[in-house]
Amino acid sequence: MRAIQITEFGGPEVLNLTELPEPEPGPGDLLVEVERAGVNYADTHRVEDTYLSSSGLPLVPGSEVAGRTSDGRRVVAMVDSGGYAERALASPHTAYDIPEGVDASTALALLIQGATAWVLLRHNVHLAEGESVVVHAGAGGVGSLAVQLAKAFGAGRVVATAGSEDKRELALELGADAVVDSRADDMTAALVEANEGRRVDTVLDMTGGRVTDESLHALAPFGRLAFYGMASREAPKPIQLPNLMRHSATVSGMWLPHAFQLPGNVVGRAMAEMFDLVRTGRLRAVLGGDYPLDRARAAHEDLRSRATQGKLTLDPTA
Amino acid sequence: MRAIQITEFGGPEVLNLTELPEPEPGPGDLLVEVERAGVNYADTHRVEDTYLSSSGLPLVPGSEVAGRTSDGRRVVAMVDSGGYAERALASPHTAYDIPEGVDASTALALLIQGATAWVLLRHNVHLAEGESVVVHAGAGGVGSLAVQLAKAFGAGRVVATAGSEDKRELALELGADAVVDSRADDMTAALVEANEGRRVDTVLDMTGGRVTDESLHALAPFGRLAFYGMASREAPKPIQLPNLMRHSATVSGMWLPHAFQLPGNVVGRAMAEMFDLVRTGRLRAVLGGDYPLDRARAAHEDLRSRATQGKLTLDPTA
Repeated sequence: MRAIQITEFGGPEVLNLTELPEPEPGPGDLLVEVERAGVNYADTHRVEDTYLSSSGLPLVPGSEVAGRTSDGRRVVAMVDSGGYAERALASPHTAYDIPEGVDASTALALLIQGATAWVLLRHNVHLAEGESVVVHAGAGGVGSLAVQLAKAFGAGRVVATAGSEDKRELALELGADAVVDSRADDMTAALVEANEGRRVDTVLDMTGGRVTDESLHALAPFGRLAFYGMASREAPKPIQLPNLMRHSATVSGMWLPHAFQLPGNVVGRAMAEMFDLVRTGRLRAVLGGDYPLDRARAAHEDLRSRATQGKLTLDPTA
Repeated sequence: MRAIQITEFGGPEVLNLTELPEPEPGPGDLLVEVERAGVNYADTHRVEDTYLSSSGLPLVPGSEVAGRTSDGRRVVAMVDSGGYAERALASPHTAYDIPEGVDASTALALLIQGATAWVLLRHNVHLAEGESVVVHAGAGGVGSLAVQLAKAFGAGRVVATAGSEDKRELALELGADAVVDSRADDMTAALVEANEGRRVDTVLDMTGGRVTDESLHALAPFGRLAFYGMASREAPKPIQLPNLMRHSATVSGMWLPHAFQLPGNVVGRAMAEMFDLVRTGRLRAVLGGDYPLDRARAAHEDLRSRATQGKLTLDPTA
């Protein structure tokens, strides 16, 4: 089968199209005929070996696929690796049936980005009715869904940040009440101003560096910042617990693989709720580009340049 | 009237009994004939000027009183300062009527310690049914109530720490499922062992230093540590947000004065729920000592030596 394999860690240039043997399902594995593979920021980290967990070589990147199982189900599923290929192996525990009328790319957007947004809002910041929410990268994969979910969950005011006029326009279309340039000189002041002069209740942040530092300073008492990525590749300043106490502030980290282990089938419930919102027209996945498998490099380059809007997918059937 | 006044910052030795003029109520103030004044850790910090907010001199310490208002209500109330006296001024916004049959010392224990425990469990760590809870200083003012509230809120397993056999015995009597010596060499291992080999879901911590550091390492994915004091006077290690992400961990600071400003009368609801639990025998405040007003020094010495169990009060009528 055709697949993208890397034999050394590095930038997009290490992503090469190769011919590989078919994957061999172990007991309980689902063999999925890949209709679309999702492309994620985490993939860029895995490929350069800067991910939270390390990978061996050679590696077929890609942690999520949508497609048909050998028994005819159409599923969206997490895979350990191997998604950038014509066929991939998935665990039934992280495979979710795609309802009628939902396209593969949308299902993929909901699986990692959607579940991330859902878990951040429900489990990390515990958004309460009427509260304000800052969504950094509000036109991105997670952000574009978080803006809509926050509104669906009853947020009082949603402030989205984005680095270009187009992206800010998109965030407004998706329901953000205000937008802020993500390169604002003083993010604290910009967020408070966008929140009508009040400090903010919650922040969803995957940027890092000074955006995180300055967002923390914008929190109201009992405010919560959830940190789920570091796209800037710069660590925020360390947090002093006595300072959190002084401001009754909460900082929360989230790495999605843990959410699959939460009791009560949290991700399954998230998927069901989001599929329902999609089918009733209250949630739409922004699709940022569907690339033929052999253009995986371009997909990574575009994602890293932050020029894309929404979910990127690879099409192994093209 | 008789009052304890300090004219310089320092240890318990600066607490002196003095004769002062009656306080003059401003518009809206409640004048309270003090039946009991609460003694808190925060008072020891205010007296040595190491509190989160600074005080001027001269100062009558004491931030909470129970007693009669001039219009005959029996209330427990927060005061800015001035509690260690025969009469004090309270704001109606932080005064709560004490129901029939609840003694003044219990009401005082619920106001700061109880509301702290309640807010930590409900707003900081969002305790879910069946989750494990570590309560550091589980025989202390907040801890003894937190152990009982955690059980009342459906905690799966409550692990209390305390520095003496007597205190650990008390925590067990109050409903803790397991106890740990707060001077354990390896707090991470001790907590996991007390939780039947599993990492813990939530920690309520007012210790600081290595107890905090090692408690963080005992958290399960999506675990939450709430930090609401630093009795050891030692700061925990700074927190790196990428580490929180790696473990899907949350750290949350809490300073009770902010809770009085939360929408939805959070503290009022907390007090009502706790008064109800007291009246139905499901919650009891541990009373650690009732000192005549002129023995305020002894009260502070005992509190700082960590030899006390439960709520300390001063009696200006004695």
